[in-house]
Amino acid sequence: MKTPFRHRRRMLLSYLAESKVHCLLITSPANWFYLTGFTGDAGALVVSRKGTTLITDGRFTVQGHEETSGVRILQQKESLFESLGQFLRDSQSNRVGFDPSQLTVGQLASLRRAAGRRLKWVPAPGVVEALRMRKDALEVAQMRKAAILAGEIVQFAIGLLRPGIRESEVAGEIEYQMRKRGASGPAFETIVAFGERAALPHARPTGKRLRKNELVVLDLGVILGHYCSDITRTVFVGQAPKRIRTWYKAVLEAQTAAIAAVKSGVACGDVDAAARRILAGYRLDHLFVHSTGHGLGLEVHEAPRIARGQTRRLEPGNVVTIEPGVYSEGIGGIRIEDDVAVHADRTEVLTRAPRDLIEI
Amino acid sequence: MKTPFRHRRRMLLSYLAESKVHCLLITSPANWFYLTGFTGDAGALVVSRKGTTLITDGRFTVQGHEETSGVRILQQKESLFESLGQFLRDSQSNRVGFDPSQLTVGQLASLRRAAGRRLKWVPAPGVVEALRMRKDALEVAQMRKAAILAGEIVQFAIGLLRPGIRESEVAGEIEYQMRKRGASGPAFETIVAFGERAALPHARPTGKRLRKNELVVLDLGVILGHYCSDITRTVFVGQAPKRIRTWYKAVLEAQTAAIAAVKSGVACGDVDAAARRILAGYRLDHLFVHSTGHGLGLEVHEAPRIARGQTRRLEPGNVVTIEPGVYSEGIGGIRIEDDVAVHADRTEVLTRAPRDLIEI
Repeated sequence: MKTPFRHRRRMLLSYLAESKVHCLLITSPANWFYLTGFTGDAGALVVSRKGTTLITDGRFTVQGHEETSGVRILQQKESLFESLGQFLRDSQSNRVGFDPSQLTVGQLASLRRAAGRRLKWVPAPGVVEALRMRKDALEVAQMRKAAILAGEIVQFAIGLLRPGIRESEVAGEIEYQMRKRGASGPAFETIVAFGERAALPHARPTGKRLRKNELVVLDLGVILGHYCSDITRTVFVGQAPKRIRTWYKAVLEAQTAAIAAVKSGVACGDVDAAARRILAGYRLDHLFVHSTGHGLGLEVHEAPRIARGQTRRLEPGNVVTIEPGVYSEGIGGIRIEDDVAVHADRTEVLTRAPRDLIEI
Repeated sequence: MKTPFRHRRRMLLSYLAESKVHCLLITSPANWFYLTGFTGDAGALVVSRKGTTLITDGRFTVQGHEETSGVRILQQKESLFESLGQFLRDSQSNRVGFDPSQLTVGQLASLRRAAGRRLKWVPAPGVVEALRMRKDALEVAQMRKAAILAGEIVQFAIGLLRPGIRESEVAGEIEYQMRKRGASGPAFETIVAFGERAALPHARPTGKRLRKNELVVLDLGVILGHYCSDITRTVFVGQAPKRIRTWYKAVLEAQTAAIAAVKSGVACGDVDAAARRILAGYRLDHLFVHSTGHGLGLEVHEAPRIARGQTRRLEPGNVVTIEPGVYSEGIGGIRIEDDVAVHADRTEVLTRAPRDLIEI
């Protein structure tokens, strides 16, 4: 099969040609996978017009040869950043681009020491991320599969809910099903939050047992064929009181409005505002304590951010979550989340699971 | 129950008193958990003589209040590092310590912008890690439980091995059992590598099916009560040929020698050398492509490193892995790993699972 990696490196080289850097240093595993197919989790990649070099340690060199093509694999000496610095010093590159959000202060200091004074270190933030943001048709197809699987698993998990079950049991069954159904694992730590714990948007599963008349927030995603999905559903155990129904209705309306706002050319901040406006109409906007969504792909959080004031405009190939929620200490939380792909002429909701309030 | 967090912060303050920084910036989740009990995964902690402040976003403020005591919780404005910079600017601290390996070039730039020119940024690497390296009796007790559970699960996994089963199935069953048996999850991505894939020290589980006359490497660990374990066993499916038996014997001897070398006061590099010396006696040292081990605790890789040339000396409270291995393309790999705690007067192997070659 023709792999997309060479094409992506060519795209990156055209960026190098335009910019004033001779090579780009890649230190994020998702980025080097995107550019080469290497799935190891230690190393660094250098892309220049003269070729692509992966420097990694002895645990990963065989894997590097197996997984990549057209990439030179170098085994590092004692320290990665020392070997990398020496490699760059000996290369013909004078201006090295790097992502300031993906290199620590200490790593840059090691590189400078090892590479000598000739080299210039040029901040080049988000270059590969900008390519990754525009998913091609094959990537969107893979994300659709990951999203559908997440929807199936959230419905499976709802079927497990009964008074007495523990948050951690539900989380365990969820992650087991992910693997059983072909995922390589969860895209992030599965959230199963019962009752008051649902007020914590990022609760870790505990030994807490489910009781009647509690809210349940299930937030999960799978990694399937390297791509992530992310879905949230909220359930009430029993017949929901009026306030919960109203809140649920508000969140669902907010989510629907935000999804309707997702369109090529629309500013991300306007999508966020669409959700916030609805919640404000219900006087619940102060309980919506996070952003409306985030990009999704090889990583569970990537560009673009769907947040207040974001001026970046959506483009075809963007895949984002839309996940408004309201949270109140002592009561719990309600969040509804789906994954949405932007096409040139339409918007596609990738996740497919009912969104109405489920009372069990 | 009396929690250890205040005591740990006091230990840290005595470091601040000795050093020339007024406050220490903590940006690693494991470090802020160690100092406060906060389990959220976004934010930053500032510890100074005047108090401890956690800055985090709206998803985590309720959780921050619930999980900590004696810690001021501030909700960040738009960006964490901007809010953090402003907080530091308004504090009475002039010299801010930070860990250069835990702050990106971009984060430091944001902090400098937001905090203004008055502040001095002082590299203070590994301060909390140095405290974490010396586990107290309760921590070692917790790690013993995590290690024993990992040993039970590796034996459970060996019981699953039969020709036809897939790497990913075994990994799924392993992680399911972890949860079932009380772990909050795997400490790292479980490694299940069959046949030639066992030559990749960090192989990801694939759909590959087990065949007769193959090596199987199982490398797994749990997080139990926040602490990690890490164990590896190697199995042969069938009767192992002579070369595999010899290699296994060499690795087991190397591991035994390295464990025997673990002792308070011994340099970490000497433990590594003990393993390497045995493998050299078998002319297999060139196939041992990684370090002998690493510290273990709240994170699966922490100080000290058991590697070539490491001059740091072991101390009571250190917990390290000892995991020599040999790898050969086309044949596979053999690795044996246990977790070892250093006490003042003795060394304790925390993991408890048979180490002899298992043929199934």
